[in-house]
Amino acid sequence: MIKTGIVGATGYTGSELLRLLYHHPETDIKVITSESKTGQQFSDVHPVFTQLVDHKLKSADEIADMDLDAVFLALPHGVSMEYVKKFEDLDLKIVDLSGDFRLSTPEVYESWYNKEHIYQEGFKESAYGLPELHREQIRQSDLVANPGCYPTASILGLAPLVEGGLIDKKSIIIDAKSGTTGAGVKAKPTTHFSNVNDNFKSYGLKKHRHTVEIEEQLSGLDKEKITVQFTPHLLPLDRGILATIYATPNQKVNNEQLREAYSDFYQDHPFVRLRETAPCLKDVRGTNLCDVFVTYDERTNRIIVISAIDNLVKGSAGAAIQNLNLMFGLDECMGLKTIGMYP
Amino acid sequence: MIKTGIVGATGYTGSELLRLLYHHPETDIKVITSESKTGQQFSDVHPVFTQLVDHKLKSADEIADMDLDAVFLALPHGVSMEYVKKFEDLDLKIVDLSGDFRLSTPEVYESWYNKEHIYQEGFKESAYGLPELHREQIRQSDLVANPGCYPTASILGLAPLVEGGLIDKKSIIIDAKSGTTGAGVKAKPTTHFSNVNDNFKSYGLKKHRHTVEIEEQLSGLDKEKITVQFTPHLLPLDRGILATIYATPNQKVNNEQLREAYSDFYQDHPFVRLRETAPCLKDVRGTNLCDVFVTYDERTNRIIVISAIDNLVKGSAGAAIQNLNLMFGLDECMGLKTIGMYP
Amino acid sequence: MIKTGIVGATGYTGSELLRLLYHHPETDIKVITSESKTGQQFSDVHPVFTQLVDHKLKSADEIADMDLDAVFLALPHGVSMEYVKKFEDLDLKIVDLSGDFRLSTPEVYESWYNKEHIYQEGFKESAYGLPELHREQIRQSDLVANPGCYPTASILGLAPLVEGGLIDKKSIIIDAKSGTTGAGVKAKPTTHFSNVNDNFKSYGLKKHRHTVEIEEQLSGLDKEKITVQFTPHLLPLDRGILATIYATPNQKVNNEQLREAYSDFYQDHPFVRLRETAPCLKDVRGTNLCDVFVTYDERTNRIIVISAIDNLVKGSAGAAIQNLNLMFGLDECMGLKTIGMYP
Amino acid sequence: MIKTGIVGATGYTGSELLRLLYHHPETDIKVITSESKTGQQFSDVHPVFTQLVDHKLKSADEIADMDLDAVFLALPHGVSMEYVKKFEDLDLKIVDLSGDFRLSTPEVYESWYNKEHIYQEGFKESAYGLPELHREQIRQSDLVANPGCYPTASILGLAPLVEGGLIDKKSIIIDAKSGTTGAGVKAKPTTHFSNVNDNFKSYGLKKHRHTVEIEEQLSGLDKEKITVQFTPHLLPLDRGILATIYATPNQKVNNEQLREAYSDFYQDHPFVRLRETAPCLKDVRGTNLCDVFVTYDERTNRIIVISAIDNLVKGSAGAAIQNLNLMFGLDECMGLKTIGMYP
Repeated sequence: MIKTGIVGATGYTGSELLRLLYHHPETDIKVITSESKTGQQFSDVHPVFTQLVDHKLKSADEIADMDLDAVFLALPHGVSMEYVKKFEDLDLKIVDLSGDFRLSTPEVYESWYNKEHIYQEGFKESAYGLPELHREQIRQSDLVANPGCYPTASILGLAPLVEGGLIDKKSIIIDAKSGTTGAGVKAKPTTHFSNVNDNFKSYGLKKHRHTVEIEEQLSGLDKEKITVQFTPHLLPLDRGILATIYATPNQKVNNEQLREAYSDFYQDHPFVRLRETAPCLKDVRGTNLCDVFVTYDERTNRIIVISAIDNLVKGSAGAAIQNLNLMFGLDECMGLKTIGMYP
Repeated sequence: MIKTGIVGATGYTGSELLRLLYHHPETDIKVITSESKTGQQFSDVHPVFTQLVDHKLKSADEIADMDLDAVFLALPHGVSMEYVKKFEDLDLKIVDLSGDFRLSTPEVYESWYNKEHIYQEGFKESAYGLPELHREQIRQSDLVANPGCYPTASILGLAPLVEGGLIDKKSIIIDAKSGTTGAGVKAKPTTHFSNVNDNFKSYGLKKHRHTVEIEEQLSGLDKEKITVQFTPHLLPLDRGILATIYATPNQKVNNEQLREAYSDFYQDHPFVRLRETAPCLKDVRGTNLCDVFVTYDERTNRIIVISAIDNLVKGSAGAAIQNLNLMFGLDECMGLKTIGMYP
Repeated sequence: MIKTGIVGATGYTGSELLRLLYHHPETDIKVITSESKTGQQFSDVHPVFTQLVDHKLKSADEIADMDLDAVFLALPHGVSMEYVKKFEDLDLKIVDLSGDFRLSTPEVYESWYNKEHIYQEGFKESAYGLPELHREQIRQSDLVANPGCYPTASILGLAPLVEGGLIDKKSIIIDAKSGTTGAGVKAKPTTHFSNVNDNFKSYGLKKHRHTVEIEEQLSGLDKEKITVQFTPHLLPLDRGILATIYATPNQKVNNEQLREAYSDFYQDHPFVRLRETAPCLKDVRGTNLCDVFVTYDERTNRIIVISAIDNLVKGSAGAAIQNLNLMFGLDECMGLKTIGMYP
Repeated sequence: MIKTGIVGATGYTGSELLRLLYHHPETDIKVITSESKTGQQFSDVHPVFTQLVDHKLKSADEIADMDLDAVFLALPHGVSMEYVKKFEDLDLKIVDLSGDFRLSTPEVYESWYNKEHIYQEGFKESAYGLPELHREQIRQSDLVANPGCYPTASILGLAPLVEGGLIDKKSIIIDAKSGTTGAGVKAKPTTHFSNVNDNFKSYGLKKHRHTVEIEEQLSGLDKEKITVQFTPHLLPLDRGILATIYATPNQKVNNEQLREAYSDFYQDHPFVRLRETAPCLKDVRGTNLCDVFVTYDERTNRIIVISAIDNLVKGSAGAAIQNLNLMFGLDECMGLKTIGMYP
């Protein structure tokens, strides 16, 4: 059994980790922490766990003495790096669900996150935790930077096109739509019920942080630097990201060829599900799947890709468990095989 | 033209007043205030008014010098009384949308609101602003306490039964369901999108403040003190209160007789709409209507009443305008005749 | 392994059975049927199962030759009885999810369902599939009538009070609220998006069929016939029933005593979760739990119970699996231990 | 007073016409028709009108004898043309809300609507009813083809760019998101509550009929034929279309210059509201406004436009009334000045 801890368990990614790990046969959750709610019962914070998960919330300070094998950091950007630093001398594998180690260098981080990075050493060791692109590196790594939710949907939608050199690198437009849980557990005006319900809007136009994460990963699949247009929108629903992606081919393509490219790229990746029709968000809700549909529009000479994930699972906690499985040599799918709840 | 002001215009009742008064031919809104947002454009706070209502928010302190005819106080409980006191020497008619002057005495107020009342004089002058019960008194009054949203739906559903002496006074159960706007414009955990969406729950069991307001008004229609069971619930929607009301008749009754009692009671009241089938919330959304359906269940010997309002209109801003119309001798319906937006 | 079939797999209860049985270690689903969609892939009807459950839909006629151990009938009322009759000579255990064998006699059935019953023999053999009331009988039975969704929430909320003789039998009022999946998979005006979204209403006032089912089961816990007031409402959400239940005690009671009565009654029943505060629907969504909260209101001398289930799990497919487990001597909880997805 | 009729009043566009015309001072609705519901009260079909609009539904056959000045045809595509033909000898102004006369020729119609056109004469007389592009022609016309909802949002978002020759004509991508009322009043699987709620998907990829309507209108503003990429999506809400539009400039541009182009283009058009930040759907819900926001992304060299309307008002019934106002020489805004209901 892998002795694990969850640092920062009171947010949505923390509680989702606990929901999923409840079914994981090889992990033993030794500790869950919250600095602001130390001493409270976890199920008082998240009543859905009442009588099922009865941990008391501890301080992360206790982890040093606990002989854990692994921790998940389910913390805000900027806080996570402090814990990675604090834990550097412990013999611990870390899956960091924040954005602190996803980018290539501290400089890039600082320019998009407007924040100084206090643990630059982490950038050398960390792997970008998207198994469909970096599975071997994740297996070898002790620090995995779990991808952002939008980047997961976007990169998985585009990777076969970019890696195959099939598209004009300047033509990529990602029009993405997300549920509100991406904005976190904390009440704020943007997620006030009456501001979201029966409503829809774009946000973060031209400057969302996930843009650079997508660009860096796609650029890694190619020789050239790739720039993308990325526009997020807020959907009146809890979970899910659907990205509608547009790109212009740089050669003659057809549907058959595109589907083959995707099928080849993802043949050994159990959580990418190629679809023959466009997926909807409820097809993947609650699961670790990324549903991808690709099609070519002859009339306009454009490729359209629809990619759908649950932001809290494949876009966060599920991917973190998939990474843990790889880091410990387990079956990549362990604890993650479920069917979405529809409706 | 009636020169009016709205004190506390940035909440939902304030913005709803402005939405409705936009069509009112006899009012001229001279000032809208907010202490926390003084100096800002109202339409920056509520963008739906962009280029249509372009007031700058002022401080309520300016009202003393403005020679207004009337003000609406759209303030939280406890704050409103301070302004009523402050304005006592001005020649102003006041519609107070808070709970500060709805109850019979300062003592009752203090025991249910856990707050000292600083303007006890107001209780003597104020009229309870439910025109269907107190139209004449409202016409004479300079201070009208606009009713609570739950009390409006509940009292209008029960008044003909209580006034007609048709029911056992101890048998009344009001199972009420409200949209989230009743909880206000401010973001808080209870109105965080993901806590409300696809969810439903009761709250305030056994001790909601509106209970005593309902009891006092119903008791006023009868000789005896009436006690009611009142249970509010939170619906995953913006606007509306639907109350399902149960009572046991104290005599032989039938459907025909009940409908006649309601029809007689409300014949001169244009905003109560007796329905022949149970109403839904969207039937009244955006309007000043209260839809009421009454039926007798022979099998169980119980009367069931369904009552539906829009909590921000008939349950708040619409009723306030209806009261203003009465206070100034205008047609009671002025500015309030609309058809609900369905869907 | 228990060789099972699902008859009528294209509705919501059928697809929910498949979702849940995917994790059940002792069942082997040999066949799923649909008369209207025979020959189609199940995952074409319910795309959420794509590449995960790849059965082809067959006709129920094939079951006679298949040597199954058990079938679930996920069929409409009136159709189910035909299959129970058809299968009577097969050595099959049947869990019937329809209302066809839930009531005490064919006569009661015919008066509330307005339909002749063509297999009256079934009434003698069948057990009412609520394990919390009839566990032993279910274990012995080859035909289990899975309870209705509203009755499950209502009976579990009331059973300790009725069995304990604590309440006035004429005082029971059940104000119940359900999501739309209770109305089935078929598109109809009542479940058209714009008629449900941002809306709320009562329906089936005074005459819903589940009334008699509740009354018969509660009467079985007592010596006298019990009559209940039952009012269903339609919530703008997918899953869940929350029942707010009112009853008058026939003796002096207090909260401690009530909680003890519930705790005693349910101590050996793993799926009833007694709560210390009122539950919300998302606390049980996707799970086989029934959350129950009981409290006494001294002011009004009334007991209030809040009971919450997922209508498609504890109110249907989950209960059916719980019953199957009992019929085959398995752990009652097998395949049913999960934590609700929140949010 | 303009004597008007509404043909096909039981759908959402028909009921929305009645809701809006209730406040129109210069129209007198003499007749509303429905062939399938002839003889029923309109308010029985749409209970929101109970006791407010009490028309009985008639057959459209009665119109010939009624001496009307104008009719609105709120009919499905393919049916409308029959009535335009039938009414050709009457002295009637017609606003047709269907797609039957929106395109340039019968041939284009037939290729996108897969239907023979039975009244080809109509194409010569009809004006495309988008006042922001064709106000003068609408004033002169007796047959106005009211625009589609997606085309309204899309064309108004793009017109200043196309007319100003500012963009590469092959670069236009319109990623549009609509509420469910665009799919009509009739219950069908795509608008079944549980298929829409908490869900999101694209549809009509590559072949939606509104594509050609957008292309023809934009081409009319330019010398060359314009081809657009148009992708509609279905939002879990009732009303509203938000289009996120991407285009590449064919010259150096900046934000100031773009805003000036829009401001010039729309300076005499009261219902297009230029915004300084991206609009949300609730900003325009229930109103005849089209909110437009334009911005230039230097990083990617792309122009992004966000355009938002209520599909049942500016996208249908409201535009129809705006057109009627123009056809009869009235103030274009008559009956259409309202503030959106937020929340």
